[in-house]
Amino acid sequence: MSQVFADRRGRLRGRCAAAGSAAALVSRPANVRYLAGGSPPGSVLLIGAEDDVLLSPRAPGDDPTEGRVDEGLRQVVLPSAGGDPAVAAADLAQRSGADGLAVEEHHLSVARYRALGSAAPQLRLGDLGNAVEQERVVKDDDEITCLRIAAEITDQALGELLESILVGRTERHLALELERRLVDHGADGPAFPTSVATGPHSGRGGHRPTDRRVEEGDFLSVCLGADYRGYRCEIGRTFVIGTAPADWQVELYDLVFAAQRAAREALAPGTAYRDVDRAARQLLDAAGHGASLAPSLGHGVGLEIQEDPQLSPSAMGKLDACVPVTVEPGVHLPGRGGVRIDDTLVVRQEADGGPELLTITTKELLAL
Amino acid sequence: MSQVFADRRGRLRGRCAAAGSAAALVSRPANVRYLAGGSPPGSVLLIGAEDDVLLSPRAPGDDPTEGRVDEGLRQVVLPSAGGDPAVAAADLAQRSGADGLAVEEHHLSVARYRALGSAAPQLRLGDLGNAVEQERVVKDDDEITCLRIAAEITDQALGELLESILVGRTERHLALELERRLVDHGADGPAFPTSVATGPHSGRGGHRPTDRRVEEGDFLSVCLGADYRGYRCEIGRTFVIGTAPADWQVELYDLVFAAQRAAREALAPGTAYRDVDRAARQLLDAAGHGASLAPSLGHGVGLEIQEDPQLSPSAMGKLDACVPVTVEPGVHLPGRGGVRIDDTLVVRQEADGGPELLTITTKELLAL
Repeated sequence: MSQVFADRRGRLRGRCAAAGSAAALVSRPANVRYLAGGSPPGSVLLIGAEDDVLLSPRAPGDDPTEGRVDEGLRQVVLPSAGGDPAVAAADLAQRSGADGLAVEEHHLSVARYRALGSAAPQLRLGDLGNAVEQERVVKDDDEITCLRIAAEITDQALGELLESILVGRTERHLALELERRLVDHGADGPAFPTSVATGPHSGRGGHRPTDRRVEEGDFLSVCLGADYRGYRCEIGRTFVIGTAPADWQVELYDLVFAAQRAAREALAPGTAYRDVDRAARQLLDAAGHGASLAPSLGHGVGLEIQEDPQLSPSAMGKLDACVPVTVEPGVHLPGRGGVRIDDTLVVRQEADGGPELLTITTKELLAL
Repeated sequence: MSQVFADRRGRLRGRCAAAGSAAALVSRPANVRYLAGGSPPGSVLLIGAEDDVLLSPRAPGDDPTEGRVDEGLRQVVLPSAGGDPAVAAADLAQRSGADGLAVEEHHLSVARYRALGSAAPQLRLGDLGNAVEQERVVKDDDEITCLRIAAEITDQALGELLESILVGRTERHLALELERRLVDHGADGPAFPTSVATGPHSGRGGHRPTDRRVEEGDFLSVCLGADYRGYRCEIGRTFVIGTAPADWQVELYDLVFAAQRAAREALAPGTAYRDVDRAARQLLDAAGHGASLAPSLGHGVGLEIQEDPQLSPSAMGKLDACVPVTVEPGVHLPGRGGVRIDDTLVVRQEADGGPELLTITTKELLAL
């Protein structure tokens, strides 16, 4: 595994050199983990012209859920009163003779940035921008394997819930049970706070579970995902509680399902991000739901549950093969509820069978 | 309730005026919640010379766990493609005639700061520093009531766990069960990721639960806390599994208990933060554990689980009445395990009975 991380750091070093910066400071935790294998809390990674160093504050102990740091990487653990590792890294870069240091201006706070400047006044600070995030967009086979396992775990947890009695239980309890089942099946934890939404709450993106109980006739929408070795997937499904759905429920479900399928079918290398969004959005818009849609109908997943690319009307760029994304349109009717259907897929060439669906739980409208 | 938030904003407005800034931009979520009653994800609060405005990105819906926004406060929800609320706030401040805007440089990223400067070039940007964090240190009666309820919930969840069979269960499962019980008893959620550490893991601060199972003869240390209406408390206890602890276990437990008691007894208005730390640290140091101690043996709690003050050797400042803090020394012997004892208390005048212990679960060494 060590070579993978060394290669990733080598690519970043090449980019920095090409941009005229001898050294780079990576502080965003998911970026540190991508390049170093692990990201002990508060650690930063200094990419030098030759040598790389992971600087960490003194930690209470190993934390396996933050990943295992590449053994080929030099690690420095600062003493108790050692201050900010980012400042120590800037000092180290200056002492090693670097004249420039590219930092993650979108992550580093103004106060930390000023402290770097004071500690290493001879360093010219530049902006690394989203260089590491861009490297992370296309996944390698090992990363996709982790996502596939995360999706299997998620499907198992959801499948078990569907076999249990749901009426009378609260959103909070169902969410906690799903999270317990994720861990039972081998997840390092939930990929994000599990959402369970019943009745008038159903169909809302990011709904936080309340004490509302599941009732006959409700729509029930759930959104969950496993974190497996740092890689996070997402599934969302909507069910109806009782023997038969009402007409408005079937109609709304069919509409959202058609929109979600259209966006899934648009997933191909070379397709513009915005065109994936539009495939779903135009169907929902034509049905009169345009004004209430979320700003984005899908996004990349990986070491973070929301990462590049965004599938939204204003997104710039095109899909590549081996980019895992979510496709997650939803419609919520205030006071009544709604439908949300969410899958994680990997973009593949047509010749390779087209988009690979990772979250395989059925998307029929089940009456539970 | 609305008056409480208006008063808090009024105090901040006064500080800004005294520092020569007509307006302030609050972006750190806990600070936004403190001043506005709620903090919808991504929202920022503009404190103007006369009027205050909460600016939020378009949200999927109400999220009660982020708190309810003060109804007396003007709210602006940006359109889907409305960009960064902080930039919109700077633009608004400039158009309303402010010449200066104090921002939270310790929270705002360099990239956002630059975007503010571009959007509102006539605004002189200053640093608000930790002004809001400082206001948050001393709690009012309503805040302490929330913490007291959070502690009651936490004691209940822990008490129930102690009545169940523990041998053979994994750290992960015990942690998930504790979190479920917190929610059962009325918590909005766990205040932080619950830590359960068995055998050689025991006594480590911030240990993330693994698949290790509880065994006879183990030390078992747990650390958990409830979030109640945004207010977060913390309790840590160490138990021994089996009929009777070993001699080394009793000895280590007595030592950590004595250190924790010494620090609790040092809590009084006017005591230096570092003297509270020292009261515990010197006992542990004298017993030969000085080198392995955490940098800080306690900290403030409130809307964040770690907030000012820090109780550490290098901390500057003195305790006030009505400041809630944790006291949490621990010793971990590599390969063997250890002991950690953690309470949440409120600093009170001697005449008012001295420090108020919120987390009342027994600190005897229980054999479970």
